Amino acid sequence: MKLLEDRILSDGEVIGGKILKVSNFLNHQIDVAFLDQLADEWVKRFSSKKITKILTIESSGIAIACSLGRKLNVPVLFAKKHQSSNVNEDVYSAKVYSFTHDQYYNVVVSKKYLSKNDSVLLSDDFLANGNALKGLIEICHQAGACVAGAACAIEKGFQNGGDELRKSGLQVESLAIIDKMDSSGITFRKE
Amino acid sequence: MKLLEDRILSDGEVIGGKILKVSNFLNHQIDVAFLDQLADEWVKRFSSKKITKILTIESSGIAIACSLGRKLNVPVLFAKKHQSSNVNEDVYSAKVYSFTHDQYYNVVVSKKYLSKNDSVLLSDDFLANGNALKGLIEICHQAGACVAGAACAIEKGFQNGGDELRKSGLQVESLAIIDKMDSSGITFRKE
Repeated sequence: MKLLEDRILSDGEVIGGKILKVSNFLNHQIDVAFLDQLADEWVKRFSSKKITKILTIESSGIAIACSLGRKLNVPVLFAKKHQSSNVNEDVYSAKVYSFTHDQYYNVVVSKKYLSKNDSVLLSDDFLANGNALKGLIEICHQAGACVAGAACAIEKGFQNGGDELRKSGLQVESLAIIDKMDSSGITFRKE
Repeated sequence: MKLLEDRILSDGEVIGGKILKVSNFLNHQIDVAFLDQLADEWVKRFSSKKITKILTIESSGIAIACSLGRKLNVPVLFAKKHQSSNVNEDVYSAKVYSFTHDQYYNVVVSKKYLSKNDSVLLSDDFLANGNALKGLIEICHQAGACVAGAACAIEKGFQNGGDELRKSGLQVESLAIIDKMDSSGITFRKE
């Protein structure tokens, strides 16, 4: 999506070849009107799917998920991160490995808010190795819910998460896929 | 605000007299259209103030802040929590004590996104002892920014945070103030 690619080129900052900082519009400071435009695009791309709920992980996914929930008129649910593995029986939980922090954490969702009647659109700001999404998928499976797809803003195409999930049959819609980035620039995958 | 009080009475759950769970519409599952209605009320109450930015703390404040940012057409900024006290010189930071978790954490905001030209509306889902808001106020002071007020959904009026902040001169607008709660019911403060 050109809108997002242009914004990444104008406002993003590549640090050390692997980190892309987009904290002035996506995950620290948030340009809400801009996220609403991204949500319009996702709504189009998932128009053939039934969606009853948006599921994301705290914290950076919440703003995007709210834009999506508003457009689709469905509730938003955000999984909470717990470092402790003491989770109780009232929640679905999955273990997720974070490359950024080099540690495992648990993501939990109350059993009250996800069921076999749900058709869930996952969403997040970034997709790299796909570990966060895989955790959310595991939670949906525990609930017996259907996973309708995944809406991600920026995908690091040079890591394997997105392509792996697509191969598994999931509809993954990343609005900007970066195939290469370094100090000299950013190369986006052709749509 | 009757709308929020009614929702708390129908969907909230009081646990042990001090904890109010509203996780089915406010801070786990999110009813976005409902938050938009709360935002309309805050926009009215702060109509006399100039606001250039919404500032909240991850994670539960983000959804509310996005509804406010959309209505007011200003950027949203969320302070990040760090357990470590190793914060670098690129950020404003404040130490906040959490009663819920009985520990201190640091909240940080990049210096890039807050300046003396900003007039900031703080927002959060809950206001109890006011420690989170005080941390955000400290960060605004570090930036030289003006604090226009605080928009909170639910205030625990039987704790002293809200009244203390009002006494200091801050316009605090909580849409439901609980003066008493226990297993027998919830008493709201008269508006």
